[in-house]
Amino acid sequence: MSEVRTKAAQAREASPALSRLTTAQKNEALLRMADALVREQDEIIAANGLDLARGRANGTSESLLDRLKLTPSRVEAIAQGLREVVELPDPVGEVLESYDRPNGLHIEKRRVPIGVIGIIYEARPNVTVDAAGLCLKTGNAVVLRGGSAALDSNRRIVETLRGALRQTAMPADALQLIEDADRASVDEMLKLNGLLDVIIPRGGASLIQNVVKNATVPVIETGAGICHTYVDESADAAMAEAIAVNAKVQRPSVCNSMETLLVHEAFASRHLAGLAESFRDKGVELRGCGRTRDLVAWAKLASDDDFATEYNDYILNVRIVDGLDEAMAHIRRFGTMHSECIVTEDAANAERFLQEVDAAAVYRNASTRFTDGFEFGFGAEIGISTQKLHARGPMGLPSLTSTKHRVTGNGQIRQ
Amino acid sequence: MSEVRTKAAQAREASPALSRLTTAQKNEALLRMADALVREQDEIIAANGLDLARGRANGTSESLLDRLKLTPSRVEAIAQGLREVVELPDPVGEVLESYDRPNGLHIEKRRVPIGVIGIIYEARPNVTVDAAGLCLKTGNAVVLRGGSAALDSNRRIVETLRGALRQTAMPADALQLIEDADRASVDEMLKLNGLLDVIIPRGGASLIQNVVKNATVPVIETGAGICHTYVDESADAAMAEAIAVNAKVQRPSVCNSMETLLVHEAFASRHLAGLAESFRDKGVELRGCGRTRDLVAWAKLASDDDFATEYNDYILNVRIVDGLDEAMAHIRRFGTMHSECIVTEDAANAERFLQEVDAAAVYRNASTRFTDGFEFGFGAEIGISTQKLHARGPMGLPSLTSTKHRVTGNGQIRQ
Repeated sequence: MSEVRTKAAQAREASPALSRLTTAQKNEALLRMADALVREQDEIIAANGLDLARGRANGTSESLLDRLKLTPSRVEAIAQGLREVVELPDPVGEVLESYDRPNGLHIEKRRVPIGVIGIIYEARPNVTVDAAGLCLKTGNAVVLRGGSAALDSNRRIVETLRGALRQTAMPADALQLIEDADRASVDEMLKLNGLLDVIIPRGGASLIQNVVKNATVPVIETGAGICHTYVDESADAAMAEAIAVNAKVQRPSVCNSMETLLVHEAFASRHLAGLAESFRDKGVELRGCGRTRDLVAWAKLASDDDFATEYNDYILNVRIVDGLDEAMAHIRRFGTMHSECIVTEDAANAERFLQEVDAAAVYRNASTRFTDGFEFGFGAEIGISTQKLHARGPMGLPSLTSTKHRVTGNGQIRQ
Repeated sequence: MSEVRTKAAQAREASPALSRLTTAQKNEALLRMADALVREQDEIIAANGLDLARGRANGTSESLLDRLKLTPSRVEAIAQGLREVVELPDPVGEVLESYDRPNGLHIEKRRVPIGVIGIIYEARPNVTVDAAGLCLKTGNAVVLRGGSAALDSNRRIVETLRGALRQTAMPADALQLIEDADRASVDEMLKLNGLLDVIIPRGGASLIQNVVKNATVPVIETGAGICHTYVDESADAAMAEAIAVNAKVQRPSVCNSMETLLVHEAFASRHLAGLAESFRDKGVELRGCGRTRDLVAWAKLASDDDFATEYNDYILNVRIVDGLDEAMAHIRRFGTMHSECIVTEDAANAERFLQEVDAAAVYRNASTRFTDGFEFGFGAEIGISTQKLHARGPMGLPSLTSTKHRVTGNGQIRQ
């Protein structure tokens, strides 16, 4: 049997016992995991050094090497993340509904673990620990398949975490790492119906599209964000500038940053030139529609391909629109239904935007950068769902649960 | 452009207007649809006659012909089903969460329509109307792809329903029927990411497995049910017999009927022979384990393949077990996580069964036949989910909704 199938079967086998642990037992396991990471940080950082050396030899960029790199303070921060998950309420066991039927049946709908969760991700070893902590806290076994660039780090981290679990009531087999770096191991995971209950991909667009296209196991699609900010005629100019600049430059590399600014023509004629200067000061390249270039001569011309691109970089599309309807039509055409914002002082326009724009998060007068499990107050985030089933937007612990109906009777039969 | 893509695009185009209709507008549309079905029943029944004649010529079985057949009273019942959906509460717009963050952001999580729902089903024209009514009531556009055996019926029904919609605020394009009877039209639907938000298959195992295996659009898997009843040592003998017989014979063709009876050895030695006679009186063929055949000589020998088969027929597997753990291990191995029952007077065993058995519905002392949206009090059912994401078990109107986060601020930006 392949490594993938063997380890997924071990996770499945561990799942029933895991699902019955108390919250205290699960928290104890997470605390032991956190302590072990700090205790064994030298070994973990040494293993990470192998990944870094391999990456350098392969010509990996400095920014990717930085995401891969572990230091004592980063290991401590990762361990601290586990301790914070311990503090979060455990959704498992929560009674969502409880009622009696006329025939005397009592029905309860309760939250239960999903079962076995597959996570496919790229070269950030912190995801190994974060994902493990969130899945185990919710009573789910987890099969991790990280990027090959972080394989030595991930292998040592998982060895540490499984070692910690052996001191607890939680079965170590609830946590599995696929070490086979071949792409075929991912393809095999995607078809493990019966062993995996769901796969959550975390990473770039090509990783996610490969999972969505090829998985027969149910998937929660995450990540892609072509987010817009529409500045309405009535917008407060200072607020619009602060929100637009924040949405673009506070962290351009992430999915909730803005890719296209839509501006009402009346606002544009008064304020776009100045707004463009603010972006130029921040090092942002502008790509504008024809009307934008009439006002901002130095902007490049934006194509439809540009409007359909998630730059994740210091590049911004700008389009001048006649009004709300044209702005919403643009968002319908080019948006990924992630996070969309209107800046306006007009309550009726705000309500139409919030109501009619179909996205996981819709904003009035705030930066789209707030679409995040921590900023939404969930205390954790396994990812940001861009699909409409199961969970939409930032996913906290309840997103890692399913439900079960408990029906109790005294001999009821159906007529 | 193909018929499938054209019609899905029309549904997508209709979706924003549909999602903004008030509950009253949607109910008005459903009532018009119901009235039109009754008014045009002669034309519908005539079209149905074409399907029936084709079916007879093709040698379709009488039981399938009966499922296909429409009569005035059946059309009236279908219309009545729509009127009952009108009476149900509209989940769209429901505020699930509403809170303020320390930075002053106000966040609301509201139910919204999913968008465009694809339904793939077999030769029952009533599904055409039921599915349309439930999707439209929840503000979803719907693309129906029924079995070719019911094509004339479905075409005439949808013509009637779309005609009714033209008298209302609901866009007729929200309701689409794929008429292309070629299997390729199904394969094309399965890949329409961006036009369809979800596909719900309704039908037999091979239809559902084709959808699960080949869809890139998210799927809600429905239907497969290998359901067990475990009769514990302490079970009340009369209750156990009533429940077991009901679970098997009240309607053997459906997914929540029992396929395997598990019996504690002590209960079996006292009561299995009598219980077997009751099944024989109802015309049920028994396939038993070796120990069963020691007590019921006329039973055939059950193989592992039998234990893994959803008969949907007057056939029942019987296995004698040493106790609860062996019963639960059998269910873990052979069950489809649909509906599982324990008959027992022992509260501790009941609690272990309800807690540990991983299924959409777990029962103590009641027939598994109750796993049904109407029996659970939902007032409707679009299907019974056997997966763990989004919805699990019977799916009522809320299962046809997604959520949206509305975030309102006064200029908040992320630090």
